[in-house]
Amino acid sequence: MSRRRKHWGWGHEDEQPSAGELREAAAGLAAHLGFGSADVEAPAPVALDPPRVELPASLRGVATQDDHARAVHAHGSSYGDVVRAFRGRFPHAPDAVALPGSEDELLRVLAWCADARLAVTPYGGGTSVVGGVDPVRGSLEGAVSVDLSRLDRVLEVDGVSRAALIEAGAAGPRLEEQLSERGLTLRFFPQSFELSTLGGWIATRAAGHFATGPTHIDDLVESVRAVTVGGDVWESRRLPGSGAGPSPDRMLLGSEGTLAVVTRAWVRVRPRPRERRSASVTFPSFAAGCDAVREIVQSGLAPANCRLVSAREAALTFAGDADLLVLGFEDAGVAGFDAAVSCCEAYGGQVSEGGGGGSAAWRDAFLRAPYLRDTFVAMGVLSETFETAVTWDRLPGLVESVSGAVEEALGRAGSVTCRLTHAYPDGAAPYFTVLAPAERGEEEAQWGPIKADAGDAVLAAGGTITHHHAVGRDHRRWYDAQRPEPFAAAWRAAKATLDPDGLLNPGVLWGEA
Amino acid sequence: MSRRRKHWGWGHEDEQPSAGELREAAAGLAAHLGFGSADVEAPAPVALDPPRVELPASLRGVATQDDHARAVHAHGSSYGDVVRAFRGRFPHAPDAVALPGSEDELLRVLAWCADARLAVTPYGGGTSVVGGVDPVRGSLEGAVSVDLSRLDRVLEVDGVSRAALIEAGAAGPRLEEQLSERGLTLRFFPQSFELSTLGGWIATRAAGHFATGPTHIDDLVESVRAVTVGGDVWESRRLPGSGAGPSPDRMLLGSEGTLAVVTRAWVRVRPRPRERRSASVTFPSFAAGCDAVREIVQSGLAPANCRLVSAREAALTFAGDADLLVLGFEDAGVAGFDAAVSCCEAYGGQVSEGGGGGSAAWRDAFLRAPYLRDTFVAMGVLSETFETAVTWDRLPGLVESVSGAVEEALGRAGSVTCRLTHAYPDGAAPYFTVLAPAERGEEEAQWGPIKADAGDAVLAAGGTITHHHAVGRDHRRWYDAQRPEPFAAAWRAAKATLDPDGLLNPGVLWGEA
Repeated sequence: MSRRRKHWGWGHEDEQPSAGELREAAAGLAAHLGFGSADVEAPAPVALDPPRVELPASLRGVATQDDHARAVHAHGSSYGDVVRAFRGRFPHAPDAVALPGSEDELLRVLAWCADARLAVTPYGGGTSVVGGVDPVRGSLEGAVSVDLSRLDRVLEVDGVSRAALIEAGAAGPRLEEQLSERGLTLRFFPQSFELSTLGGWIATRAAGHFATGPTHIDDLVESVRAVTVGGDVWESRRLPGSGAGPSPDRMLLGSEGTLAVVTRAWVRVRPRPRERRSASVTFPSFAAGCDAVREIVQSGLAPANCRLVSAREAALTFAGDADLLVLGFEDAGVAGFDAAVSCCEAYGGQVSEGGGGGSAAWRDAFLRAPYLRDTFVAMGVLSETFETAVTWDRLPGLVESVSGAVEEALGRAGSVTCRLTHAYPDGAAPYFTVLAPAERGEEEAQWGPIKADAGDAVLAAGGTITHHHAVGRDHRRWYDAQRPEPFAAAWRAAKATLDPDGLLNPGVLWGEA
Repeated sequence: MSRRRKHWGWGHEDEQPSAGELREAAAGLAAHLGFGSADVEAPAPVALDPPRVELPASLRGVATQDDHARAVHAHGSSYGDVVRAFRGRFPHAPDAVALPGSEDELLRVLAWCADARLAVTPYGGGTSVVGGVDPVRGSLEGAVSVDLSRLDRVLEVDGVSRAALIEAGAAGPRLEEQLSERGLTLRFFPQSFELSTLGGWIATRAAGHFATGPTHIDDLVESVRAVTVGGDVWESRRLPGSGAGPSPDRMLLGSEGTLAVVTRAWVRVRPRPRERRSASVTFPSFAAGCDAVREIVQSGLAPANCRLVSAREAALTFAGDADLLVLGFEDAGVAGFDAAVSCCEAYGGQVSEGGGGGSAAWRDAFLRAPYLRDTFVAMGVLSETFETAVTWDRLPGLVESVSGAVEEALGRAGSVTCRLTHAYPDGAAPYFTVLAPAERGEEEAQWGPIKADAGDAVLAAGGTITHHHAVGRDHRRWYDAQRPEPFAAAWRAAKATLDPDGLLNPGVLWGEA
């Protein structure tokens, strides 16, 4: 880590606003929202309990027990994580942070953890918003955060098959920078792109740039290499497709660091897009926009971008005051642009071609959001998001009942808004944003019951507890209810075989949450 | 089963050629191939050992021990299966054939098998070409073939989300007939379409009609319901996408009846295509055709049909004497037709628009092939196919080395030909057809070493032992070598939990092959 990450919130220490800038931003935001305060708080200092275990001399160059590193690796990036760290609370600071620079060093770290009975928390960019990277030790002697960020190289590119072998710790910009030297791109741009890593995307079945087609990283993975805590290598063949038994890759995709530590993967890449056509479309209602999106994807059109933002959410992000569809096609997909525009018009859409206007404003807000939230925390604004996916027949009911449940939990203050981030022929992924006046100092206690009601409403309405934010510890209650019990039994047996001492991420997907 | 299936080979008893027709066909084929004989043999009579177990009175209406049913369910549809049954050899005739008409009846059958320690062989259409449906009992007391064909209804259609809930035993025509009443189609047309079933497709990760995009049934499955031998229900939520842990469906997809018996699934359907554009393209070489196909799929074009047939294979199937690409676009994909034609022309392709000519002849041959093989067996022609998938960079080498290995194993007689059946951005699925003079009466001994050399060559060249024919028992040796060992260990643990007595399909994917 050449630049120091902030020990709380998003980004690096060298890109923080000054106190004056922060106050000014807070005043503007408070005026816009109607709540929050220009009286911004400063983060509490870091004070951690000393490590519970001693680092072996042989690992001194591979791991650290430095307080800043321990604080950075003590949490992910959920609202609760940001608030806790802001207030100086680090309930799961790791006893050490390992930064292996090779698979061999990783194996030495894992061997130490096995010997000393330490929990192993694989860590990519620390962007989990579901409690997936907190070094919880469970019943073990301690916990080690295993940060893969030094494994960040593109090792090999197969230009003929358009695939690249990339190390798991490569974050979005680093990965794209190396691919771009070959004129290639993964084109996988989750909101966490700046910090999140290939290994993290695989472990959590992240969803990226494409609103249709290959939206989940699952679709871009050609083969995966991982190591178990016992030091065994799990490596699948590079194959474009196969029908040989259940897919080994699909067992690792979504395993959230509980079965093995992903070290590298072959992924499908493509040339940078040469042609694009985009439009902003405003609709008379969110429902009309949903119908248009449904018709677009069911017609077999494949927009790269197809995000429908509700009028209330557009207003909050300065993107106008109507229900807005951000629509973009790339390369071969461009042939479908006119047909998609016709779909929109059939549902009353007002089409404005080009990337400007509402679309550009919305995109800027999208990428700025993780930074903005730190300001929100300092100025007393509760700010969190959650997402799901649901079939089209159940979508209107889900949006209504989930929004209603959150509004009721919020009381009179604050708002919940919705957008569709991804669209499938048989359904879509609604994404909810909650903004409300925070109960300063009591933020965790305030958010907990709201999140609980939201999760209950999502499941009751036929959705999944997560479309692309993973399960971690925060979603366990609903995940346990959602997954088929025989599958859970099979998975637990697999887990017990690969990790008999239960070292990998206790509480994530399995065990006491 | 209202129509009686043949006890050997393909199709039903009421569609068999007369002896005269068969002789005439054999004479023509022998002249075309340069081997085989008009002196056709007749199938041996069926003589089975008596069942090893007695059917409980309570299951008399659900299961049968009739010799014809036992012979039909004793095997799948590989060349070895056809030859063995033709010669009156039924080494794995089941002790009973169950035909449950409901999930409840299925559970009663499974309970009997568990009580009496009988192997359970889930059976869809009996079209396995890899020894996947032989009722092998292993170390158990007997074996029961569990034929799902009475569970053949479309139970529910969600026209908004374009999804349908279909019972596992529905074969292609029955499933399409019910969907077509709603103007919908699954558009999943494997060569076995006439007899194979939805449950079989899911269990084996079958590949169907689409040469690009959603080629495997995996991509069309929204949720799966299955029952374990212990009677537990494994049912996933209907979801268009999810990031909640590893996919439960993907653990059943490809499980080949070893973890649970699939009873129904929600699948993604679509309206019948309204627009089509197709072409036959001849290329100066197979390599030039491969390059064109690669460029088409890497450009993001999505032909529904994109099968490249080598010149030798085209000649054998009366589809001309050049390397032939059968290219077809449907609905939204049609927008890419001209660009695909340009790709072909850039590699020397001679394009003839329309479905006639070589394309039509090839398609007819494709659908007739399973029937034709029965004639081949009777006339002393060895006829078998196998397939793989491989990344583009390795494709030319694989086709060369696999073809070479088979040619060497064949000696001077016979031929091996190749086509590409499915194409991905990062690779393709080559499909090989072997035709040779059979050593009559010794066919199994003749084919075994050829298949072994082919499998070894496929793996050595970087392919998978199967793209869409599954593993069964015949591919075990290569599958065991191919899958990552930690995955195998995890899978075995899952298997032991769901099926502790090892009743489900012993030898398939696990256990003694």
